Amino acid sequence: MSQYWSATVSRLTPYTPGEQPQHQRLIKLNTNENPYPPSPRAIAAMGRELGASLRLYPNPDATPLKAAIARRHGLTPAHVFVGNGSDEVLAHAFCALLKHELPILFPDISYSFYPTYCKLYDVEYRTVPLAEDFSLRIDDYRVPCGGIIFPNPNAPTGRLLALDAIETLLAAQPQRVVVVDEAYIDFGGDSAISLVERHPNLLVVQTLSKSRSLAGLRVGFAVGHPALIDALERVKNSFNSYPLDRMAIVGATAAIEDEEHFDSTRRAVMASRAALTAGLAALGFEVLPSAANFVFARHPGHDAATLAAALRSEGIIVRHFNAPRIAQFLRITVGTDAECQALLESLRAKLG
Amino acid sequence: MSQYWSATVSRLTPYTPGEQPQHQRLIKLNTNENPYPPSPRAIAAMGRELGASLRLYPNPDATPLKAAIARRHGLTPAHVFVGNGSDEVLAHAFCALLKHELPILFPDISYSFYPTYCKLYDVEYRTVPLAEDFSLRIDDYRVPCGGIIFPNPNAPTGRLLALDAIETLLAAQPQRVVVVDEAYIDFGGDSAISLVERHPNLLVVQTLSKSRSLAGLRVGFAVGHPALIDALERVKNSFNSYPLDRMAIVGATAAIEDEEHFDSTRRAVMASRAALTAGLAALGFEVLPSAANFVFARHPGHDAATLAAALRSEGIIVRHFNAPRIAQFLRITVGTDAECQALLESLRAKLG
Repeated sequence: MSQYWSATVSRLTPYTPGEQPQHQRLIKLNTNENPYPPSPRAIAAMGRELGASLRLYPNPDATPLKAAIARRHGLTPAHVFVGNGSDEVLAHAFCALLKHELPILFPDISYSFYPTYCKLYDVEYRTVPLAEDFSLRIDDYRVPCGGIIFPNPNAPTGRLLALDAIETLLAAQPQRVVVVDEAYIDFGGDSAISLVERHPNLLVVQTLSKSRSLAGLRVGFAVGHPALIDALERVKNSFNSYPLDRMAIVGATAAIEDEEHFDSTRRAVMASRAALTAGLAALGFEVLPSAANFVFARHPGHDAATLAAALRSEGIIVRHFNAPRIAQFLRITVGTDAECQALLESLRAKLG
Repeated sequence: MSQYWSATVSRLTPYTPGEQPQHQRLIKLNTNENPYPPSPRAIAAMGRELGASLRLYPNPDATPLKAAIARRHGLTPAHVFVGNGSDEVLAHAFCALLKHELPILFPDISYSFYPTYCKLYDVEYRTVPLAEDFSLRIDDYRVPCGGIIFPNPNAPTGRLLALDAIETLLAAQPQRVVVVDEAYIDFGGDSAISLVERHPNLLVVQTLSKSRSLAGLRVGFAVGHPALIDALERVKNSFNSYPLDRMAIVGATAAIEDEEHFDSTRRAVMASRAALTAGLAALGFEVLPSAANFVFARHPGHDAATLAAALRSEGIIVRHFNAPRIAQFLRITVGTDAECQALLESLRAKLG
């Protein structure tokens, strides 16, 4: 605390990202990065941009990127908002679309950044417990509220909510914005972007950090009715005119356009997930069904925090959340087959 | 307006950045970009980063960049905050350090983003008129207030405030944060960073967009007492854990470390500014004394908006603000000598 701080700063509970160790050789299965490199077309596009043109401001509207995203989904650029990672996009959505009189709703087990955004923007919220099996029950969200947000598939559980359930919710809350945070959708679900034209209250948020292997470039986007996008643009243009740098705009555009690389890498991750799930089950883990590039697993006979620490001492990092209901789970990113194998062998030695 | 918008969105007045034309051959003297390319060391560092590592998140603290900035100014990394352009850094400062009971103060003629931030964060403000000659009178700021912010040199006037005046103000307002926005300081002023150790209420904001020729990379920073930096970090970590991408971190670090390129390019800009000022004066313009990489000039016999439009039709863009007191001025970025010459020739034809 300091006399110079605003009341806002004093009430914040900043988010703690997963560990990003520098200069160490580790098997990093803690922050859900893609084990495969980004599209070679993205790298090539950035290589072409790298030079004297960096002295010039970027396109403040990231026009080519919005156009590429719109084309891919059969929508217009007016349906697309882009930002410096989906975290920035989500932040603007909390400020622009989720701050109303009534509290917003999100699952009790969910992306732990949501309550942090609420404190930043003074948004009231109420958490809604997931079912015992960690599935999301749509009926629990049929109550007066200021808005709804949830990840799909959910994080850190990996569980997928079907599109028809989402559509039921959209129809049940036509006065409220429903934000579907699809950071992991490309690893096994159908995107709610297909519902955008029918539902003016739907905002879908995605990122290039996971299925496009570009966590290091910081690009996320939202798709929704132009009135919702306009709200995000107004906040963005009151905060930072140029959130995406020149490298990010060209790299992200090329990555979105490279369907082949996208498809082959996400399929590889999904295949590895199946093998990892089977391997963990064989060791006695209970593994939740995952539609994401991670699995959420607990062992009936071993403490999760102890396991995570033991793996860490051997140079394998997984994520453990010391939180109610999930303190006995480990969230394990799907790495390469070799990385998953190393994890399984290390666990086998400990459990055996 | 839309039923889905928050009250915040509805009250916003988004900022309008200078025109960024795409794919056109223009002499672009409207957004104060540096006419010289970035440091070759910065380009090389980014070239080395460009590859598979982009699949991994960046360092959330941008540790190497903070260290380079701290070293350059004889401070510690705890004195340094970095963000996605100085616009983002300023936004966080409004939220974290300038939002208090009393209105903040800034000059009536100043960076036009300040009132926009105020609306975003619901910060009350009062503008303080500059003197007739557009100089800033420190005595006008010796009043109860929530904080003070001004650019130095001021934008769009280019006028510099001396360091001893800033120190007088810091001592006069020890309970309030004074933000000195030094986007243009490297083109002719002494940075207030030298005062940071003596004044816990001083926050100095700088950017790599101007003197480091990296507008396209989006990197800005703030230097101040660790308690002020901590406030910015708390807001940043409640908004976006990774505001700087991998390319930006390595490119900015190398650019900060390349003193030689920095010094030779800023000296070239300062020499061109002197020539441009003389050339404009010879055409009958009144040119304010500038310590920035632009000049602010008016012609007693010609309307500024008309001149700007006529230049635009010939492919030369300068910036005109349709605002009280300055509507007869043009803000002209210092380009290369050839660009400045083309501007002067075009003006000569119009005025002759």
